[in-house]
Amino acid sequence: MTTASDRTSAGGPAGPTSPLTSRPLDVERLLRPASVAIVGASANDGVISGIPQRVLAQHGYTGAVYPVNPRYDEIDGVLCYPDIESVPGPVDVVLVVVNASRVVEVLDACGRARVRFAVVISSGFAEQADAAERQQALADVCARHPDMRVLGPNAEGLINVVDDVPLGFSPTIDYRRGLVQLRRGDVAVVAQSGGLGFALFNDGLSRGLGFSHVVTTGNEVDVDLTDLAEALLYDPETRVLLLFVEGVAEPERLAALGDAALAAAKTVVVAKVGNTEAGRRAALAHTAHDAGDEALYAQVLDRPGILRAHDQEHMIDLALALSRTPRLAGPRVGIVTVSGGAGTWLADDLVSAGLQVPLLSDGLQARLREGIPPYGSPANPVDATAQVLGLGGISPVVRLLAESGEVDAVVLVATLADQKQLEREREHLVALARAVPLVIYSYTRPAQASIDLLEELGIAYFTSTARAAGALAALAPRDQPR
Amino acid sequence: MTTASDRTSAGGPAGPTSPLTSRPLDVERLLRPASVAIVGASANDGVISGIPQRVLAQHGYTGAVYPVNPRYDEIDGVLCYPDIESVPGPVDVVLVVVNASRVVEVLDACGRARVRFAVVISSGFAEQADAAERQQALADVCARHPDMRVLGPNAEGLINVVDDVPLGFSPTIDYRRGLVQLRRGDVAVVAQSGGLGFALFNDGLSRGLGFSHVVTTGNEVDVDLTDLAEALLYDPETRVLLLFVEGVAEPERLAALGDAALAAAKTVVVAKVGNTEAGRRAALAHTAHDAGDEALYAQVLDRPGILRAHDQEHMIDLALALSRTPRLAGPRVGIVTVSGGAGTWLADDLVSAGLQVPLLSDGLQARLREGIPPYGSPANPVDATAQVLGLGGISPVVRLLAESGEVDAVVLVATLADQKQLEREREHLVALARAVPLVIYSYTRPAQASIDLLEELGIAYFTSTARAAGALAALAPRDQPR
Repeated sequence: MTTASDRTSAGGPAGPTSPLTSRPLDVERLLRPASVAIVGASANDGVISGIPQRVLAQHGYTGAVYPVNPRYDEIDGVLCYPDIESVPGPVDVVLVVVNASRVVEVLDACGRARVRFAVVISSGFAEQADAAERQQALADVCARHPDMRVLGPNAEGLINVVDDVPLGFSPTIDYRRGLVQLRRGDVAVVAQSGGLGFALFNDGLSRGLGFSHVVTTGNEVDVDLTDLAEALLYDPETRVLLLFVEGVAEPERLAALGDAALAAAKTVVVAKVGNTEAGRRAALAHTAHDAGDEALYAQVLDRPGILRAHDQEHMIDLALALSRTPRLAGPRVGIVTVSGGAGTWLADDLVSAGLQVPLLSDGLQARLREGIPPYGSPANPVDATAQVLGLGGISPVVRLLAESGEVDAVVLVATLADQKQLEREREHLVALARAVPLVIYSYTRPAQASIDLLEELGIAYFTSTARAAGALAALAPRDQPR
Repeated sequence: MTTASDRTSAGGPAGPTSPLTSRPLDVERLLRPASVAIVGASANDGVISGIPQRVLAQHGYTGAVYPVNPRYDEIDGVLCYPDIESVPGPVDVVLVVVNASRVVEVLDACGRARVRFAVVISSGFAEQADAAERQQALADVCARHPDMRVLGPNAEGLINVVDDVPLGFSPTIDYRRGLVQLRRGDVAVVAQSGGLGFALFNDGLSRGLGFSHVVTTGNEVDVDLTDLAEALLYDPETRVLLLFVEGVAEPERLAALGDAALAAAKTVVVAKVGNTEAGRRAALAHTAHDAGDEALYAQVLDRPGILRAHDQEHMIDLALALSRTPRLAGPRVGIVTVSGGAGTWLADDLVSAGLQVPLLSDGLQARLREGIPPYGSPANPVDATAQVLGLGGISPVVRLLAESGEVDAVVLVATLADQKQLEREREHLVALARAVPLVIYSYTRPAQASIDLLEELGIAYFTSTARAAGALAALAPRDQPR
């Protein structure tokens, strides 16, 4: 089934001068498998090995599912096989959930059975002090079966959100244990930590962010984060790539990824951890990654196609902004606010983030004044006051600012605890978001209905001044004097 | 009813050497009024003037309510009076919601009627370019009636959460427009911005934070932020005071407040905005406050009783930490995590925040190893792995660390998208939180049930590594070498 050419087929537009690896991973069968086997499957859905099959069923996966475990004849009415060799059809992906001591033997059998991808969820390899030999044995079995590519061990699996294919045991992909609603979108996650990778997914979904794929890599005996990031960069569904990195063998491949992203009008957002002694110790214990030298990463990753995220919420902020908001042509930001205090704080934070909040021209101020109550202010921040909502809405004020040529972006400061204002002005806001980079800072906690509506309108929002400013600054030109 | 001595009666333990103002405001009748009149009340609950009476009714306010408006005989079945002089009983608080042009006349009448507090919600005074005379007239009317104290104009009102007395029109105190559930607690807010003050309330409630009082001051023609902060410092229900400051006349009074807070084992958290040219312009337009010089504030507010907040979410983080977590005796933090990646990130951020994540002793590591799977790590971060939850829970691991004497605080890294783990280990966690400063960082978005349970358990939680680290660092000793 699998030939060596699968391993070398180009995944996308990377031409002969591409700085990317010369052997991009073909992830088609990993992300869109026609068949999935679960070796070590359990009928007990209270243990990890019992979960993947149920999650596939929950999501209505339409491919073939083959539980493999000699102890069962069937699980949930699906025929169970004693070993991978007994499975009747070709297998695109095997999820390996057996005890660590049995993984090498299982992978050997999978290789012989011409499985294309094995995702080893089992833990207990290089990250465990006394298990280095086991990791070596795993590397050896991978070398024996070069046509089978292996994720993990110690991986948490993946989800293809676009096609609704969940492969793993994370509570965040399980409707019974944490998943509320899938949202399809253009953001992909590749993470060396299963917990954090799926946490970004969970966090993003709760903020209305749509995803294309989430893939976690664990110990990376074979396929590594950079392989997957390169492959997903050429996924047509993906425009923003979030990478959670504990340590990579070749940081310069990440730099090349950033350059390729820039060329493809995509963006790579990198969270790199293990920058302190305690963090390095933790990364080594966790997935056996050497976190390396932060100064080196800082230098290598300092490229226009790459943004650094300092925190998981910051990462989601950047993803929301990149996914929904065009880049700014310049650093000048106009603020339209219904709360004077919130506008003041935002002005401070925008300036602190390197942007400008210019005083508007007299002519523009005069025109703005007509749309706001006399006790508002047209200077910038444009304080339209809460009363503006009774005066024909805030969109006319935003429009004057957006069309003035005096600002490169507009932040609308609003209270989304209630979705009514958004609903009333939705059409105007969508039109405005096409005319100018427009984001919203909500000083109250947005209602779920507001979050859903903003996803539909394609407008990014933030829940603090610092976060709004940080995300907008990331969209501004880098080299322009501010 | 009101005598001059009310104005000078001591509000609490401030002795003769107290650096606080010599004339603390007696807020008893403002916060716990036996009667409330609404001058300018409307039968239309779609306008601001129609809201306060409905909100009082929603909350089951048991005092006397007197709508005042010559256009109505009754509003919602409550007898309506043509003017304040016609109201039959004594009035503790008047909410003034008439047009700005009528406020002076109304206040004069209120003063003659011996009203104790007037809260002027109407806008259109000093913050408006051409209304300086009106503000002066307002100051004059206050001077004519020194026994009546005035909040505002351009204020959004207040809520006494402890006794459930809402006075104002904010959607965040209105069950029909944004309030989901009140939570009583020991955090008070005093804000020069109504929008931001009530946003902190809304934001905090959604995170499970309990409040004592929220008061907004607006333009401060009479009572100012510092007056209210001083008074609330001596409120027995209040232990944490959040101040949103655009500008105060005497910053050194805030410093004295910080010292008095320290002496009373309370803490003042200050967000000071207007630190940039754009921010100063906005503050002036908003509530006519001169934001002053940030360098001066930085110096004056640099005191052990005061913490600075840089962002509204940071402010709620600090409030949660101060409200629920004891101060740290030293800078050493132990991490117990079910996600290796999240533990790594947290270790980095704790160290970056000035704390320590010490390598644990061999003896302690050996004991910890017994409670975690072999592929976990006992070094610190203690990576207990997700499998620990099937091995008797995570509390035994936290306990070993908490009782070791090797750390001054413990952060438990968990996934609160599901409340089951918390529910299973709740009693152990409460006992542990008594033994050591214990906070939780959840790398998934906490379920509402988790948030409610943590409020009950009195354990602070954070939703990113940077936020957990920032809050914990604020609880650590200041002068200790880190």
